[in-house]
Order: sequence, then structure tokens, then C-alpha cells
Amino acid sequence: MRRSLLLALALIAGCATAPRGTGDLGLVVERASGSLLLVETSGRTAFARVEGLGDLSHAAAVYSRDGRYAYVFGRDGGLTKVDLLHARIAQRRLQAGNSIGGAISSDGKLLAVANYEPGGIRIFDAATLELLSEVPSTWGDGKQRAKVIGIADAPGNRFVYSLFEAGEIWIVDAADPRRPQVTKLNGIGKQPYDGFVTPNGRHYIAGLFGEDGLALVDLWNPKPAARRVLDGYGRGQEPLPVYKMPHLRGWAVAGRYVFLPAIGRHEVLVLDTVSWTEAGRIAVQGQPVFAVAQPGGRRVWVNFAFPKNDVVQVIDVPEMKVVKELRPGRAVLHLEFTPRGEQVWISSRDDNVVVVYDTASYVETARLAARSPSGIFLSSRAAMTGF
Amino acid sequence: MRRSLLLALALIAGCATAPRGTGDLGLVVERASGSLLLVETSGRTAFARVEGLGDLSHAAAVYSRDGRYAYVFGRDGGLTKVDLLHARIAQRRLQAGNSIGGAISSDGKLLAVANYEPGGIRIFDAATLELLSEVPSTWGDGKQRAKVIGIADAPGNRFVYSLFEAGEIWIVDAADPRRPQVTKLNGIGKQPYDGFVTPNGRHYIAGLFGEDGLALVDLWNPKPAARRVLDGYGRGQEPLPVYKMPHLRGWAVAGRYVFLPAIGRHEVLVLDTVSWTEAGRIAVQGQPVFAVAQPGGRRVWVNFAFPKNDVVQVIDVPEMKVVKELRPGRAVLHLEFTPRGEQVWISSRDDNVVVVYDTASYVETARLAARSPSGIFLSSRAAMTGF
Repeated sequence: MRRSLLLALALIAGCATAPRGTGDLGLVVERASGSLLLVETSGRTAFARVEGLGDLSHAAAVYSRDGRYAYVFGRDGGLTKVDLLHARIAQRRLQAGNSIGGAISSDGKLLAVANYEPGGIRIFDAATLELLSEVPSTWGDGKQRAKVIGIADAPGNRFVYSLFEAGEIWIVDAADPRRPQVTKLNGIGKQPYDGFVTPNGRHYIAGLFGEDGLALVDLWNPKPAARRVLDGYGRGQEPLPVYKMPHLRGWAVAGRYVFLPAIGRHEVLVLDTVSWTEAGRIAVQGQPVFAVAQPGGRRVWVNFAFPKNDVVQVIDVPEMKVVKELRPGRAVLHLEFTPRGEQVWISSRDDNVVVVYDTASYVETARLAARSPSGIFLSSRAAMTGF
Repeated sequence: MRRSLLLALALIAGCATAPRGTGDLGLVVERASGSLLLVETSGRTAFARVEGLGDLSHAAAVYSRDGRYAYVFGRDGGLTKVDLLHARIAQRRLQAGNSIGGAISSDGKLLAVANYEPGGIRIFDAATLELLSEVPSTWGDGKQRAKVIGIADAPGNRFVYSLFEAGEIWIVDAADPRRPQVTKLNGIGKQPYDGFVTPNGRHYIAGLFGEDGLALVDLWNPKPAARRVLDGYGRGQEPLPVYKMPHLRGWAVAGRYVFLPAIGRHEVLVLDTVSWTEAGRIAVQGQPVFAVAQPGGRRVWVNFAFPKNDVVQVIDVPEMKVVKELRPGRAVLHLEFTPRGEQVWISSRDDNVVVVYDTASYVETARLAARSPSGIFLSSRAAMTGF
């Protein structure tokens, strides 16, 4: 009986992870320690830490379609599949020398990782992390590869991204993931530095570092082509020193408007997605890094580059002006909303804290200790396009 | 050892519900048998059946914010909390004599159930199903109650709904759920029959059975008022016999357009949400019941009333016309998309089947046996406003 009792206890321990929903889970990237803090947004608590993810500077994550697994893309080329329910690494492989992010296909079966070195993307089976195919970012005379940036998923298992040195946008159809079909758009503008797919999956927009505008592609067009928007918005004139390149992602879209951090300028640019013309500029207190639309698009929250990076400003969309300023802590690196927008989670790297606010009242509702937190990624991203 | 082995097996069985993600789960209402078929969209299979939910005709469901629990609103006034992971009823109460649906608050903590008898809404704690408060739909001389229809959630823990006999729209602020604050909009039009909140949480739109138009409320307005839209669209002229009232819900919105099934007419009306004027009408093959936008808004899928209810038509939004016709089975009652739109699930009551299509190729990818299936509700609704 004694032995059977021990066996019994062992088995209970073996299935100690009680079943729970995954719709309210998330992770916080702890870049300095190569770890992830696992969180849940119902009680607004941290419940576990997962370590051993390597170099997580500029790390990004996407989610399996069931919300259980996060795929973390590390700067060191590491691709790590994390099991949020068991709070452990399910699988990890070093897939390249230098990676800058990735995307998951609309059916959830494929991962595409964007690499600097060697330049190109690699497509993996999301279940096994098996390498299925590779698309080198060869350009010009065919001897060189460009850095791949701004990769995003598009409907129909497509991936869209930009080639920095080449000034090209590539659309990869991975319907047959071992033989991806590539559509190359040339001459889209100099030095695309980031890009995104709008949440409806229709448009890809690349920001240009080398000139004064952005490149727009309509993915619904059977023969997609790039056109220039916000040409001459002022990126060129009297450029300020750029302390940190802004980030672009699907969350910049609020209703009919896209809110774009201007490079080096203390402005957020507003792009009208009906006319594709400038709808205004909003003066902000520093160089914007992220402009993130609160779900529903009523407000847009903005964080900033050094030295103004202890402030978050909130733009009211109907009024098109800043209506609130918050100081969550020093070095605010990222912010993430719960899917229905009632909470926002904000990371303060230098205060080692993640602060949660109620978005209706701006009241702080939680303050969680974290190690130099940067990116925050909630599992609700599993259901979104362009995230 | 034999005994310990049996004990071991017993314990394994005891924790047989292996942890799994809940982002790809869903339920199919089996109205005739008062049961639910539980499904998952990754493998496109049914994995369990839950019975004992009472009268499920016209039943609707919402989800807990973690995606684990479904709250099912039955026509008999039954409010049932279903645990999808353990495939069982977690809690059930008969809360009224005759109910017509409900909504879950933006923070996921409150349920509001809309009742015909007694007329009004009741607000419950989503965790315990404890009754917190009641808002009777008293109107006119104060002696009578109206039927409550078209209830939906709005940001800031608000609920919006219409009073059929009274021709009123009420906005309930449940910030203090034991003392809800009610804003009443009078004279919005005769006999509102259904209503919905747009996915951005900004607008509430009520269809009017008693006259030729719809009522629109801007919930971002600090002093909300109802205005008439699509006035005189033709509901009045030469009305055909109405075989089944159409349903309105947030999923009617595709980009800047709302697609509205015309009452009794073989048309889908298109409402422009920028100008709030009619943007066109699309001829369809029968009386439309549901017009559901595929996530992303590229296409709108429509099912129909008897006798044309064995057909589903697909509208292309850029072309504004029907581009595809499918025949999933007899008596198609409902359709539901996976959140990124790559799959659509369609119920055929009289063929006792749920059919799954790949939305890009229109290829049938699964066919699941079900008992007189009607509504299909996926857990991804947990992250959506106005569903």
C-alpha cells in the first residue's frame, strides 16, 4: 500500500497542471535575463517564469491558434516554442544567426521567420518546428542578400515583408509551404525599415527610412503594386537625430485612420485609409516609438524614445489631440491591450515593473515586478491578422 | 503491485482532462435535444456532447474572457454555464420565464440577460451566476413592460438594448452592477425587432419592424441620441410575407459597410458607416436571415429563410455582388467564422450536419454529424465586442 500511495502521489503530481482557459494568458519579455514572465489578465497576476530563451533583445512573439503555445523569435536566431500551460519550453532551435521577428500563417500551421543573417525567411511547421522551406532575400546582381524586415501574415497563408537594402516588398504564398511562390515588388522606395499588414488583412504598409513617405500595397488586388503615400510628410526636412526607430504594426489602425510615429519628429502622422491622404498630425512630447490603437479605435496610446521615455500620451481620435499623460515608470518600452480594450499593460524597463491601467478611468489596477521588461504579448493575438 | 497499478490507472483517469488551449474551441446548439456539441477548429472535429440545457430554440451563447466557459441563454429563461474543458454543465439556473439572449460585459465579470417575460434585463455575476440587479422594461404609463430585444455589450461595462412595444433604446451602465444607471432614448421608431453594437463598440443600430428604416445611436457621444438611417428603404412598399425575421449582429460590418438583410425582400442592404447613407443593395436568391462578414471584410456570407434555406450565397465586397453559391444541406440555420477567417462553419438542421469550408477555395474540409444543429458559437467571441 505504501508503494501504491507513493505511485498515486507521483501521478497526481504528474497531472498537477489543472485545466484552465488560455484566452486571458500572456507573456512579458525579460530581455536582460533571457526569460519570459507569464501573466494572466483576469486576476492581473504573474504566475510563472520561463528561462533559457537566449538573446531576447528586440524579441517578438506570436501564438498558436489554440492560444496554448507562444513562438518567440529571438535576436540570436532562436525560435522557441513555449507551453504557457506547463510554463516551460516545449521546443527550441537556433534557426539563423540574426533574426528580427516572424509571423504565423492564417491557418496557424506555419511559422515564417525573418532573418538578417543569412538574409531571407525560413518557413517552419508550427507543430514540430521542422524547416519546410527557405526564401533567400537575394537581389540586384544576385550575389547579395538584403535584411528582411516588417514581416506580417496575410489571409490565405501568405507572408508579406520588405527588403531593407533592396527597397523591395515580397509577397510569399505558402499554400504549398515546401514550394512557396514569391511575388516581388521592386522600386517601392529607399530603405524600408518596418512594415505591417492592416488588421483586415487588405493592405501592407512599409515605412521608408531613405525617403519622405511610405509604400502601400493593396493585397486584394490580383496584381498587387506599391504606391507612395504621405509623400513629403517631412521626414527629410531638418531631420532630428533619431534616438530609436519607431515600430509599425497592425495596431496602428484606429477605425479609418492609421496613426504613424514620425521618424525623429515629435509628431504622430494620421493617414486616412479611405482617401490614403494625410488626415492630420498630432504634436506629442517626444519622438514616438509605438502608437497603439485601443481596441475599438477611440483612443491611441503612444510611448517615446529616450530621453522622453518615462511618459505615455493618450490621443483621443474624435478630437485628434492628446487628452491624457501617464508616467508608468522609467524607460517605457511597450504597451499591449486586452482584446476588448478595457485594460492596457505597460512595461517600464528601468523600474523593473509592468503596470496595468483601466483604460476607462486611467486608474492603475496592478503593478507586477518583472526583470527589465520589454515586449508584452497576450494570447489574444492568436485570433488577429497582422499582429 | 496489481492493486497499485489499478490505483495508478484510476488516478490517470481522474485527471484525464489533459491541459489544452481553449482558443480553438466552440459549441454547436442542438436545439431539438437540448444539447451542445463541443467542437475544435484545429482538427475540425467534435469531441464531446453536453446535455440537459432545456429549451434551446433561438439559443445564443457568449464566452468567459479566458475562453473556458460558455454562457448559454435558453428560450426557457435558462442561464447555463458550460465548462468546455470538462465537457459538462458547471452551473445552471432558470432566471426568467422567457429569455431572448444576453451579453457579457467588456471586463468579462457581468452577464446581462434580456427577457420577454418578465420584460427587462437581469445582471448576474459571471463567476457565480448570482443575481446582482434587475432593470424592468417598464414604459408608458408605468404599468406595462416591453419585450427586450437586441441586447449587446458596449465598452465600459455598458449594455445596450431595445424595447419592442415601447420603441425605445436603453443604455445601461453597469460600472456598479448592483445599481445600474439607465439612459433611455425615446421615440426611436416603431417595433425595434433586433439590434447590435458595431465591432468597434461605437454604434448601436436597431432594425425597425414597424417602419421603413433603422435607428442609429453613437455611443461615443456623451449625450447619445437616436437618428434614423436608411429611411424608406422599402420595407413598407409591397411587403412580401416574412418567413423568418432576419438577425442583426456585429458581424454584419465589413470594413466601412454594414450589410443588412432586408425584411421580407430578396435583398441585402449596404449601409456606409462613413456617411450613414445607403451604399447599395445586392440582389440575393431568397429572404436573407444572416449576413455575416468574413473576418477582414472581403466577403459577406448570407443564408436564407424557408423555402430557399438550402443555399448560402457569398457576396464579394469590392464588387458588391454575389460571386459564389453553396449548398451545404437542408435548412441552413447559422454560419460562424474562425477569427482569422480561413474557415467557415455552417449548420444544416434538416441534414443533421455541420459543414466546414475553406473560405479561400470554397472546398469542404469537414462534415460533422450533429442533432438538428442551429447556432454555432466559437470561443474566439470572448475577445470580441458586440458578439
